Amino acid sequence: MPERIGKYTVSTPTHPAVISYAAAVGKKEGEGPLSAEFDYIAEDTTLGEASWERAESLLQKTAVQYALKKGNLSASDIDVIFAGDLLDQCIGSTFGLRDFGIQLVGLFGACSTMALSLINAALAVDSGWAERAVAVTSSHFCSAERQFRQPIDYGGQRPPTSQWTVTGSGACVVGRGEGPHVERLTLGRIVDLGVTDANNMGAAMAPAAADTILRFFEDTKTGPDDYDAVVTGDLGIVGSKLLGELMQKEGADISKVHRDCGVMIFNINAQDVHSGGSGCGCSGSVLCSNLLNRMNKGELNDILFCATGALMSPTSSQQGESIPGIAHLLHLSNRHE
Amino acid sequence: MPERIGKYTVSTPTHPAVISYAAAVGKKEGEGPLSAEFDYIAEDTTLGEASWERAESLLQKTAVQYALKKGNLSASDIDVIFAGDLLDQCIGSTFGLRDFGIQLVGLFGACSTMALSLINAALAVDSGWAERAVAVTSSHFCSAERQFRQPIDYGGQRPPTSQWTVTGSGACVVGRGEGPHVERLTLGRIVDLGVTDANNMGAAMAPAAADTILRFFEDTKTGPDDYDAVVTGDLGIVGSKLLGELMQKEGADISKVHRDCGVMIFNINAQDVHSGGSGCGCSGSVLCSNLLNRMNKGELNDILFCATGALMSPTSSQQGESIPGIAHLLHLSNRHE
Repeated sequence: MPERIGKYTVSTPTHPAVISYAAAVGKKEGEGPLSAEFDYIAEDTTLGEASWERAESLLQKTAVQYALKKGNLSASDIDVIFAGDLLDQCIGSTFGLRDFGIQLVGLFGACSTMALSLINAALAVDSGWAERAVAVTSSHFCSAERQFRQPIDYGGQRPPTSQWTVTGSGACVVGRGEGPHVERLTLGRIVDLGVTDANNMGAAMAPAAADTILRFFEDTKTGPDDYDAVVTGDLGIVGSKLLGELMQKEGADISKVHRDCGVMIFNINAQDVHSGGSGCGCSGSVLCSNLLNRMNKGELNDILFCATGALMSPTSSQQGESIPGIAHLLHLSNRHE
Repeated sequence: MPERIGKYTVSTPTHPAVISYAAAVGKKEGEGPLSAEFDYIAEDTTLGEASWERAESLLQKTAVQYALKKGNLSASDIDVIFAGDLLDQCIGSTFGLRDFGIQLVGLFGACSTMALSLINAALAVDSGWAERAVAVTSSHFCSAERQFRQPIDYGGQRPPTSQWTVTGSGACVVGRGEGPHVERLTLGRIVDLGVTDANNMGAAMAPAAADTILRFFEDTKTGPDDYDAVVTGDLGIVGSKLLGELMQKEGADISKVHRDCGVMIFNINAQDVHSGGSGCGCSGSVLCSNLLNRMNKGELNDILFCATGALMSPTSSQQGESIPGIAHLLHLSNRHE
C-alpha cells in the first residue's frame, strides 16, 4: 500500500516491478546510438499506414504487443492501461489501444507522460486493485510537426534551441515478479517562469524538473550521490545545462550523474537534431530500452527517472500564453532492503 | 485500501467522501432548470477574458476556488488534483490550475473526465497516499465549437441529433469526512461500434455506457433496482434511448431509474439544444450541483454516476475514423454498512 514520505513523495512498499517492457521506434531513432536496444524499428515514417497519426497509433500498439509478448502475457492478463500522447484528444493512444479491450485511464502530461503513466501503474499495483498494469506513451515526428509547428512539406527553418520530436513508443508492464521496481515517486506540479519561445521547450521545462527533483531529495533526505543516474526526459542540451545551473544554485550538484533521454537517443550533431530529442516517445523509448536494460544487467541499480512536459498548445501559444512545465519522477531500484 | 470485486470493479472500503464540491457554469446553463443549484453563473461567454479558452480556464479555476472555500480549505490542504478537459493538450486545466501550486495528474477521457477524475481521487484517498484530492473538469461551448466544428461566426446548421456543449465546470474535494462517499467503481474500456457521425455522439457513446454498467452489475451482483438513480454523463435524448434498448436486450431494465446529465441541465425544447447537453462540464456541473445536493439532502442515497466520452478528434474524423466511446462509473452512496 502506498505511503507518503515527507510532504510530496510516495513510497510503494510492495515494490511493483517492471516485469516486461518494450520500445518501438522510427527509422531515424533506429540509426542512433541506442539502435541495438530497441525491440522494433520502423522502415519508414508511415509503417504502411495512410497517415502519420495512424502510424503513431500502430507504433504504440506495437510497443504494447512486444511488451506483452516478452512477458509471456496476453491482453486479458492486464487489468488497466495508463496511456497518453501529444496528439489532440490523445488519439495516438485511443486508436492504438482500441483493439486490446483493456480498461483505459487516459492521461495527459505532454512529454512527461511516460513517468506519469508508470507512476499510475505502480500505484495501482501497489494498492492492490490491479494485478498487472501497462504504462505506455508515444510520439511521432511528422504528426507532431503537423500539429504543433507546420506540415513537413512547408520546410520551416529550425532554430538551434529547437528539439526533434522522437518517433517512438515505450511500454512497461508493471506487476509482481522479477525486474527493477518502483521504490518511490513524486508527482509534478505546474511551474511556469514565463518562457514563451515554443522553439525552446528545454528552457520551459527545466525549472519544473528542478522543482520535482528538489522536492524528492528533501522528502527522502537523499541527494545526487545516492543514485547511479538522474535521468531527465527531454530537456535536450539547452534545457539540461539550465537544469544543472538551477540545481547547483540550490546546492545539489547533479553534473556527475545527470543524463537526458533527449541527448541519449540521437547522435546530436551527426543526426542534425539541434538541441536533442523530445516528445512523449523520447523518454518512453529510452526508458524501455537502454535504461531498463542496464538496470536488468546490474549496470545501474538506482536511478531517478524524471520525465518533463511542456503543457502548451498551438492555441495557447497563439494567444500569447507562456509555456507551463511539469515533471513527474520515479525512483527505480534493484535493491530490496 | 482499494479491493477488487469480480473481474473489473474496485471497492473503496475506507469510503472516501466528497467533502466539498462546487459547480460554475455559463449564462445559458444558468437559465436552465438547475439554475438555483449552481455556485457561480457567468454573465456572458467570456467571463471578462480575452478568449474563450481563457474563459474556460477561469471557469475551472472558479469551480475549484468555490469547492475549497465551501470546505473551509485552501490549496495547501490538497495533495493532488486530477483534471482534464476537451481542449487540445488540455489547456483548460493547465491554465486554469496553474496558480494553485498543487501536484497535478492530467487526464484525458473526453466527456467522461468527471467520472475518471473522481475515480482517481477516490483511489488516491482510499489508498492513503493522498489525504485530500480534487477532481475537476470543464468545457465551454465556444471553445469546443471552434475546435471541433467551426467558429461560431460561421453559423453552421446543427442536425437534430447534435448536442450542445455545456459551458461549465464541476469540482469535488475528496477526503475523510461527511458527505456522500465512493463505494465502488468500474473503469471504462474502449467500445467502438463504428459510428462515424460526429453530430451523433450519443449513439457513439451509448454502447460504452452499456458495457461499463453491465460489467458493474455483474461484478457486484446488483441491478437497476438497487439504485435510486443510474445517471449517465451526456448521452442526450438520442443516446439515452439507445442505452435503454441496449440494456433491455441484456435483461437490465433501467428505464425507471435512468437519468442523463445532458437532458437534466437544459430545458431541451425551450433552450433549443436539440438532443441535449454534452461536454466534460455537463456531467461535471450536474454532479457537483443537483446530484450531490440531493444526496446530501437524503433524496438520493445510492446512485451510479457513469460519465461517457467520445474519444475522437477533428483529425481522426477527417481521416475517416469511427468514434470510439468510453464510460467510467462510480457508485456513490450515503450508506455505511
